[in-house]
Amino acid sequence: MERGDLFVISAPSGAGKSTLCSMLIEKMEWLVFSVSHTTRPPRPGEVDGKDYFFVSEQEFEELVAEDAFLEWARVHGNFYGTHRARVMEQLSRGMDVILDIDVQGAKQVKSKLPGAVTIFILPPSWQALEERLLKRGSEDKEKIKTRLKNAMKEIEEVSNYHYCVVNDKLDEAFEELKAIVSAERSKTRRVLAGRIDITRLKPSPDSWFLS
Amino acid sequence: MERGDLFVISAPSGAGKSTLCSMLIEKMEWLVFSVSHTTRPPRPGEVDGKDYFFVSEQEFEELVAEDAFLEWARVHGNFYGTHRARVMEQLSRGMDVILDIDVQGAKQVKSKLPGAVTIFILPPSWQALEERLLKRGSEDKEKIKTRLKNAMKEIEEVSNYHYCVVNDKLDEAFEELKAIVSAERSKTRRVLAGRIDITRLKPSPDSWFLS
Repeated sequence: MERGDLFVISAPSGAGKSTLCSMLIEKMEWLVFSVSHTTRPPRPGEVDGKDYFFVSEQEFEELVAEDAFLEWARVHGNFYGTHRARVMEQLSRGMDVILDIDVQGAKQVKSKLPGAVTIFILPPSWQALEERLLKRGSEDKEKIKTRLKNAMKEIEEVSNYHYCVVNDKLDEAFEELKAIVSAERSKTRRVLAGRIDITRLKPSPDSWFLS
Repeated sequence: MERGDLFVISAPSGAGKSTLCSMLIEKMEWLVFSVSHTTRPPRPGEVDGKDYFFVSEQEFEELVAEDAFLEWARVHGNFYGTHRARVMEQLSRGMDVILDIDVQGAKQVKSKLPGAVTIFILPPSWQALEERLLKRGSEDKEKIKTRLKNAMKEIEEVSNYHYCVVNDKLDEAFEELKAIVSAERSKTRRVLAGRIDITRLKPSPDSWFLS
């Protein structure tokens, strides 16, 4: 049985990660999001179990105590975590799983699953990042400054990622991301475990070749 | 300066490698073939310097003596070789280079350039391979048997390749191959060496963020 791959995608706020990941999920039917657990309150329109599993701090702490998370972190004052058993179950069914997590979470996942493929999404420039965050208009300037401070630290980690996509033009960035995710499915290990039966690549006993 | 990647593509005769490689070169402008040297006589329509550099056995031996080849081999009674300096020069200009070579050549290249990305193209089944070779009709049955004997040995090496593309439907195989070659350009090392200036990803001294 072909085992799926785990893709860890990180990016500073404003790089366009959420948009790009949603586009990926929509176009590639074998690809699924890992839905994170979080203690942050839902934003308007967010659905429990689809966007996140929204849990209380107490529930979250219980899961941590059970070692149920592949990674977890406190970001901007809220807890986020990836449920390990859930991810492993999806991978074993041959699905590719996307983890949309920050740099610290990515480090935890890499230490636990060294085969994970890591992708960093970069804005085309610092200025573009500032502009995108300011344009959103949903947060006050102090919060944006906190995000930018985190962004600066995160961008320094880019060289620890396997792949890097610069999101200047969304369509081009999407094509690049799609190629990265598609290519992984052509790794020999995966093809031989799933799509082709190697015994069909030997002459059968009644083959003309052996006559 | 962004350095290109070397792709080593191998396949048994009849797997459709030449067609797929030609399609790649046509669609991806930064991708070039490494033109091999060979002592085999040109087939109708083949152009010297484009399909191969056609040389005499004596010329070939002189190049071998000069250690001019990244790899060379005798296949079906003829010599084939890849000119090392030529490939290195293309890579250093940021181009991706495709080496269309057999399993033995691939081993030599990997030992000299461990960063080479290796791709194996498989037919969907042994029967399909036999049928394709017989349908060509350009060779007698004994030659086809020799090719099939080589094919059997080559297919055994598939697990030494990074990627594996099953050429059942040509269009799908091409998409897979394209994704593999495209993804390599998104490796962080390449992106940071070429497409993005990391200094542009830090706030400038007059940035709002620092005020």
